[in-house]
Amino acid sequence: MPPSANGSSTENKADFKAVETTPINSRNPYQPVPDFLSNVNSFKIIESTLREGEQFANAFFDTAKKIEIAKALDDFGVDYIELTSPAASEQSRADCEAICKLGLKAKILTHIRCHMDDARIAVETGVDGVDVVIGTSSFLREHSHGKDMAYIHKTAIEVIEFVKSKNIEIRFSSEDSFRSDLVDLLSIYQAVDKVGVNRVGIADTVGCASPRQVYDLIRTLRGVVSCDIETHFHNDTGCAIANAYCALEAGATHIDTSVLGIGERNGITPLGGLMARMVVAAPDYVKSKYKLHKLKELENLVAEAVEVNIPFNNYITGFCAFTHKAGIHAKAILNNPSTYEIINPADFGITRYVHFASRLTGWNAIKSRVEQLNLDMTDAQCKECTAKIKQLADIRPLNVDDVDSIIRQYHLNIKTGGNTPLLTGLDAPVNSVDAMAVDGEPAAKRLKQDPSADAARCC
Amino acid sequence: MPPSANGSSTENKADFKAVETTPINSRNPYQPVPDFLSNVNSFKIIESTLREGEQFANAFFDTAKKIEIAKALDDFGVDYIELTSPAASEQSRADCEAICKLGLKAKILTHIRCHMDDARIAVETGVDGVDVVIGTSSFLREHSHGKDMAYIHKTAIEVIEFVKSKNIEIRFSSEDSFRSDLVDLLSIYQAVDKVGVNRVGIADTVGCASPRQVYDLIRTLRGVVSCDIETHFHNDTGCAIANAYCALEAGATHIDTSVLGIGERNGITPLGGLMARMVVAAPDYVKSKYKLHKLKELENLVAEAVEVNIPFNNYITGFCAFTHKAGIHAKAILNNPSTYEIINPADFGITRYVHFASRLTGWNAIKSRVEQLNLDMTDAQCKECTAKIKQLADIRPLNVDDVDSIIRQYHLNIKTGGNTPLLTGLDAPVNSVDAMAVDGEPAAKRLKQDPSADAARCC
Ligand SMILES: [Zn+2]
Ligand SMILES: [Zn+2]
Repeated sequence: MPPSANGSSTENKADFKAVETTPINSRNPYQPVPDFLSNVNSFKIIESTLREGEQFANAFFDTAKKIEIAKALDDFGVDYIELTSPAASEQSRADCEAICKLGLKAKILTHIRCHMDDARIAVETGVDGVDVVIGTSSFLREHSHGKDMAYIHKTAIEVIEFVKSKNIEIRFSSEDSFRSDLVDLLSIYQAVDKVGVNRVGIADTVGCASPRQVYDLIRTLRGVVSCDIETHFHNDTGCAIANAYCALEAGATHIDTSVLGIGERNGITPLGGLMARMVVAAPDYVKSKYKLHKLKELENLVAEAVEVNIPFNNYITGFCAFTHKAGIHAKAILNNPSTYEIINPADFGITRYVHFASRLTGWNAIKSRVEQLNLDMTDAQCKECTAKIKQLADIRPLNVDDVDSIIRQYHLNIKTGGNTPLLTGLDAPVNSVDAMAVDGEPAAKRLKQDPSADAARCC
Repeated sequence: MPPSANGSSTENKADFKAVETTPINSRNPYQPVPDFLSNVNSFKIIESTLREGEQFANAFFDTAKKIEIAKALDDFGVDYIELTSPAASEQSRADCEAICKLGLKAKILTHIRCHMDDARIAVETGVDGVDVVIGTSSFLREHSHGKDMAYIHKTAIEVIEFVKSKNIEIRFSSEDSFRSDLVDLLSIYQAVDKVGVNRVGIADTVGCASPRQVYDLIRTLRGVVSCDIETHFHNDTGCAIANAYCALEAGATHIDTSVLGIGERNGITPLGGLMARMVVAAPDYVKSKYKLHKLKELENLVAEAVEVNIPFNNYITGFCAFTHKAGIHAKAILNNPSTYEIINPADFGITRYVHFASRLTGWNAIKSRVEQLNLDMTDAQCKECTAKIKQLADIRPLNVDDVDSIIRQYHLNIKTGGNTPLLTGLDAPVNSVDAMAVDGEPAAKRLKQDPSADAARCC
């Protein structure tokens, strides 16, 4: 039925029937029940690798690296790129100007103290928007700048009106919002909303907020201001992704991220982790808006720049994110991965990996890997290769590179008629006997016949 | 005033006054308002490194390593240690018996399928409790075992009554609980509660649950059963710690963890991350119950056993968890760390680290590091050493090891009257000019006089 601008009652009836035939509990169960408050399906990302991330212990970005990262973020599809204050140093100012001149699709923001001196410098850089921040918690008031609320109100409004007069977008945020007095907070947000600020920001500067606390505060704030709401969550207590999600549920519009979460201490909401959360909650929105298959490249770029390794358990791109250690289950996972995976690795250009070198390895897993490696082998050859891998796994644990080497060498041998040992490229076998061989029987033989092999697989 | 069993009205008045003088908003702001539903102050840990963790791609624990890990977990103070099913393999059964014989303070559990064959093997191992699990989601019912609910009820009750008849603790859990039919779920939990199960378990097997969804489900379940409630959260979408916290807020009693979160795919709620969350929410409970200063050692033990690195951004023990990149701010952080830190690193036997090699480095930071290294240097010597570090930082970025080497060599030179170059132990300087030297002036000179150096520090 074609869409109609003024739906007749017949069409309404049909729509209603369509809803009836898709009862609420047969829809995608990870997608929330419709909620008019929620922005889970319409959030924007303020990417702060070049501001928050520059405060990471290991970050030393030169101009060329900043430009390379800004371009990669823009290509990924983030809505905003936030840069270090031009008041921080002459180099920061020059870099800010250089990035503004790149002509990126993403809007460029810079992040300054709520102070006219900084605002005057910021508006001359060519940025699309200015993010101002002021500490309002009693902790910060006592130990940092000591200013009282009347002064904060006055300065905030002066800065906002000045930036707006230059036709530049302006956000006003408190620092350490979750340890600030609630009445002080709502009072200043109401005041800046009235003078036309574009966004207000809530920042969990110390990483103390919990998800329901976030929901409650954002929900309350949503009733007080009509402008957009940006949120910024540190990850000290492990809630940075969950808090961002709850903020969106409560009506926040913008989420701050950085690549791999880099920032002060252990960082903020990671871009990749937020994508993992949101691709499950709002798959169409996320997949149409962001180039998810560029995530891994983007993370590698930043990881190299700040000299860290991608954590083994990183969201989506960590080596074990889509790894299954399974034998009998391997076939089930390969046939119907949604049973054990809610994220499709293909959306991120990543390949599912079934762990071969375990006591539960079956030839289905090896066949899958052979296909992933684009090698041409028959089922019989896959089975023989699996048996050989199990023999080697009895000697020592094998990692994925070991197994790939064995498969490639086996494939080369069958294609060339050669007989090169499959151990080529492996380290010398370790001396300790691994768990698979403890009972003195070759693992390959024992496990092939073990009817209870799937007893080990649990939730 | 001494406590009294039957408080007089005068005492009540005094108590009321005491409450008045400690208004709600001046108490520790991270501690929740009292909530009778919440178990944030009384949770128990079921540590599953030796069960869930054994399903991690890289895990190959031999008997000796399992015993070493079990002892370390017991020493840390976890309430339960969960082991792989004895039905998985003969070795798993033997290891289970061996760990039961260690006489640990922690209760030993094993985790089996909801099946009499497995239950019969489990009760002979010497375990204190048995955790049974059955898939109840439509996803798993369709693709895994295909059993219907009547069969599940019947089997569950048979297994529970059998295990209880052996005077062994019993938990019944569903798998993939958040994709299961709610009515099916509540129905089976109510049935097993009635026959006296010790705990029911909720498992987010695929890592799709969000915090408010968890709160709602546990809150609902809390009204249906009177037994304990255990929860198990995978971290695919970054909510495993937050979900555990919300579960406790809603009345769950037990949280599953593993060291570094190791498990299927990118794992479950990490023990260290949960400690970070809970030491903020329930400091007295957590600090009196768990040996937090053993966390780092425990994580290193497991990381070595499964051949992974501790992630750079790991909770508490990651290299940057308590790292501050600051110059002017260094003094403020050192004087009053709670302004920027909600977790006290000393509780975990870890030292706060102020980053020296940045454009904002001040001599306060170097002095702090000298003290941490237990070296004896005057303020004048610290200042001279700082100047030398800044000179070297102009040539290339320095990491903490570099700076420590420089400090130690400087200290050795002043003590021995030597003049060994401070670059000893550093790699050759890199060719690229780093950000600090871009404008052609030595960073040390430029930054010493920069009045806007704190403009870079933001939330
Ligand atoms: Zn699990
Ligand atoms: Zn921040």
